Amino acid sequence: MKRLIAVDWGTSSLRAALLETDGRVIEERSLPRGILTVAAGGFPSVLDTACGDWMRSDATLTLISGMAGSRQGWIEAPYCPCPAGFADISARLAWVEPGRIAIVPGLSCEQHGAPDVMRGEETQVFGALDLLGMSDAVMVLPGTHSKWVRVNGGRIQQFSTFMTGEFYALLRQHSILARTLPPDDGELDEPAFRRGIEHALRSASLLQTAFSARTLSLFDRLPAASLPSYLSGLVIGEELRVQDLSGLAGPLVVIGSAVLTRRYELALQVLGVKARAVGSEATWRGLWAIARTLEGNA
Amino acid sequence: MKRLIAVDWGTSSLRAALLETDGRVIEERSLPRGILTVAAGGFPSVLDTACGDWMRSDATLTLISGMAGSRQGWIEAPYCPCPAGFADISARLAWVEPGRIAIVPGLSCEQHGAPDVMRGEETQVFGALDLLGMSDAVMVLPGTHSKWVRVNGGRIQQFSTFMTGEFYALLRQHSILARTLPPDDGELDEPAFRRGIEHALRSASLLQTAFSARTLSLFDRLPAASLPSYLSGLVIGEELRVQDLSGLAGPLVVIGSAVLTRRYELALQVLGVKARAVGSEATWRGLWAIARTLEGNA
Repeated sequence: MKRLIAVDWGTSSLRAALLETDGRVIEERSLPRGILTVAAGGFPSVLDTACGDWMRSDATLTLISGMAGSRQGWIEAPYCPCPAGFADISARLAWVEPGRIAIVPGLSCEQHGAPDVMRGEETQVFGALDLLGMSDAVMVLPGTHSKWVRVNGGRIQQFSTFMTGEFYALLRQHSILARTLPPDDGELDEPAFRRGIEHALRSASLLQTAFSARTLSLFDRLPAASLPSYLSGLVIGEELRVQDLSGLAGPLVVIGSAVLTRRYELALQVLGVKARAVGSEATWRGLWAIARTLEGNA
Repeated sequence: MKRLIAVDWGTSSLRAALLETDGRVIEERSLPRGILTVAAGGFPSVLDTACGDWMRSDATLTLISGMAGSRQGWIEAPYCPCPAGFADISARLAWVEPGRIAIVPGLSCEQHGAPDVMRGEETQVFGALDLLGMSDAVMVLPGTHSKWVRVNGGRIQQFSTFMTGEFYALLRQHSILARTLPPDDGELDEPAFRRGIEHALRSASLLQTAFSARTLSLFDRLPAASLPSYLSGLVIGEELRVQDLSGLAGPLVVIGSAVLTRRYELALQVLGVKARAVGSEATWRGLWAIARTLEGNA
């Protein structure tokens, strides 16, 4: 089996890891070279900058997940429609160089007459399932565009995107609230965050609750320094409000950075829902599992 | 009775009208001199620029509604707590010059443990009630911050703010959707607008529905030129989704500009709710009604 170069190539950054044949991470790197920074035709040289040394040193396989497979990416890896399992994505890799560099396809689904899509999260989901030894789960992957994913029998049945992180940034930076909020978010103020969660859960729309960040400040009922945490609670609480978590058999799986998974764990406590956090290792594990399959087929 | 100079002094603009003693509008003006453009101490000279000629020509009374009465305005006119009627706001004017220039106070209320506020809309509401000869109504005043108002027995019992217009602008200008949307909104595309309304009504959160503007475009299921109308439908539909309109005895009163009231009428059609539109005359009528009260008391 070859060593694996695992690449998570998103919109705003590129993360890469060199993995030993047994899945152990030898080295990790991160570059601010998301696909939006790459001109047409520039993908090979950016990949070479990121991990050319790894690619030259040994017989390696490079597997890439994320937006590099989108229409604006390196080559387009068409979406697999849901329900989709691990076997579906490993069978539909888009090969940049046969046997050497491939891109993992994203997934699509349909809900209420509108399509939904993910790219990169599918790899994290299958990686997390492998790490946790699970085949049924509800998972959330918080971020700019949070994904909620239902897995049954090892297959992703359905998922939904919530523009939670992006709404936070829009309100934080460009709305009328920006005038009242301090320039830096600072440390998370847990009571203010929880207050935002609770307010969102008993309300019906962020269109309405967002205004409370302004009025609570206006009436000196929340100090300016607590507003970023309160607002974060409002948007994450809005995301949680509309989830159906009644049929959860086990803990909700939260996949993401330590900072974000901590916030979701706190928020889920308010709902009385147990959470289990998985970090960035989910991506490496997912790509390594695909590599193993290729070896098995070879 | 003196002629009335009625001023609607908001955040981004100042509108003024000279009214005959019988309430008839003699002349109207609009200046891009909202309170955000006025430095501390600069309010008298901006008012003089706007309507100094009217103020000099005759014995006049100047009544101002809107953000000019806020902490960042000319002088602060403290909020009247709800329930509040016409008599409450006319009795609590903040006089800049006794007998000559006064500012109408805004209203405050409390819902789900958070305060809500309005400034200027209370005057439009009482003006519209007077124009329509009503004392019980549900009203919406669409805008950057839409207000939903419940009136019983001539008193505003409760109201709620929805940051609908602001969310539209944030998504339109600063979100990932901005990349896909055409530079100009263009004419309203009614079918696309209605599709946005319907999608919002069957969904649970704008955090989720907003992403459909991206995916429908990605799958070529909605042309780029239709996206602004679709997005407008999504945000207005989200506002409508959370209103309890089951107990409406008469038409919903929609107070605002012709462009906005038209959109709300279209949206309400989808819900099967009758609407009755009132334009900017509501402000002048509200201020004129206050002036009449003062004369009656004099």
